Amino acid sequence: MSELSKNKIKWIKSLQLKKHRDLENLYIVEGEKMVLEALSYAKDSIELLLYTASFDFDNEEIPSQLISEKELSMISTLKTPNKALAVLKKSRINSSYNDTLTIALDDIQDPGNMGTIMRIADWYGIKNIVCSIGTVDCFNPKVIQASMGAIYRINIQYVDLNKWLSRYKSEVYGALLEGENIYSKEKIVHGVLLLGNEGRGISSENRQYITQAISIPKFGLAESLNVAVASGILVSEFKRRMA
Amino acid sequence: MSELSKNKIKWIKSLQLKKHRDLENLYIVEGEKMVLEALSYAKDSIELLLYTASFDFDNEEIPSQLISEKELSMISTLKTPNKALAVLKKSRINSSYNDTLTIALDDIQDPGNMGTIMRIADWYGIKNIVCSIGTVDCFNPKVIQASMGAIYRINIQYVDLNKWLSRYKSEVYGALLEGENIYSKEKIVHGVLLLGNEGRGISSENRQYITQAISIPKFGLAESLNVAVASGILVSEFKRRMA
Repeated sequence: MSELSKNKIKWIKSLQLKKHRDLENLYIVEGEKMVLEALSYAKDSIELLLYTASFDFDNEEIPSQLISEKELSMISTLKTPNKALAVLKKSRINSSYNDTLTIALDDIQDPGNMGTIMRIADWYGIKNIVCSIGTVDCFNPKVIQASMGAIYRINIQYVDLNKWLSRYKSEVYGALLEGENIYSKEKIVHGVLLLGNEGRGISSENRQYITQAISIPKFGLAESLNVAVASGILVSEFKRRMA
Repeated sequence: MSELSKNKIKWIKSLQLKKHRDLENLYIVEGEKMVLEALSYAKDSIELLLYTASFDFDNEEIPSQLISEKELSMISTLKTPNKALAVLKKSRINSSYNDTLTIALDDIQDPGNMGTIMRIADWYGIKNIVCSIGTVDCFNPKVIQASMGAIYRINIQYVDLNKWLSRYKSEVYGALLEGENIYSKEKIVHGVLLLGNEGRGISSENRQYITQAISIPKFGLAESLNVAVASGILVSEFKRRMA
């Protein structure tokens, strides 16, 4: 076991910041499960794999280094560091937008919400998420942690969302508090599900491109639903009809 | 504006711990929105309201104190303290279990998940949540923050869940990965929706009381859904049929 150099520690920790991730086109994933999934789904993207003795690993093709628990805790963003950490190249996941359902995010801010929405897309077989420039970075360590491997399988793009929507040819379903009851909607064939910021919802500039305003009926007194939960319910409603 | 005493600061901060909340039968809520909701829904439970000059407040019936921004930041658990904080008596919300749908939680650990499930219940008009003793405390500040006021409106009880389920007379719908497709279920009339721990799911002792195992169909590659998202989708499916 060779020692993890100070410079390497510095380099890995620098990737906790978007600026450095963008500059180097790299990001980090952590924990046994996430690193095992990287080995399954994104092996060619692994730039460096760091693992402790308790991580079962033996693959000479992958650049790797056995490190101590103490070293792992020095580079980890987790409260309880968990066996391994990998540095990955950001790689583009090829996918066409002909897919039945695409998710569009208008300035989602919370990393937990972003990761959870990615996980929902991954569960429901949605291949594309289009994000406004102001949406939290999908390579943020907290997003990665909440996404549970979705980052390896979903095409996520940051675009000028307003322009993107203006050019989109099919239905734009906007999640609004005052939309049409999603439960009574007819079959849904093809489109974009547009979800807004946690505080202010969908911006007025993007609202104009909504062709179908939809809502989740309220039975109680809460003011709103968490945006990740709302996307789960709406995607479920779309997929149920498409299945 | 009188100064906030050291002892008061100590007392309020002590309520961040379950031990002290239990001992004093008190909890704290924070932020403009949550405190305004407390004034609307739980006025009689307010033991003390602390507010900064930017919080619009004028009610002599409620024990209150104007404090400085600096004092608020000393007692706040939020990264960005927000105008007010209140100490509330834990009060029992009366509700019968004859309600159509009850949620049962088997050792939910994550405060964000717990609060989000409470918010889902609040949106869908579910009045009762029954929790195993091992479930995270619903008065935990992070739970309160994620629940967005649901704490004022929902009856949450901590019970020996295994015993409680053994005595429950109606259907127990258990969310399992290998259950029946929820989309193809017939009308659902009355019952408990049982949700399991983030890591290990529903415990085997509680699993035996499931009368109907249900699942959310998977279309993609994710291993699982976040438990709060899964409860949102399942509750939506129940309420859609009940409506």
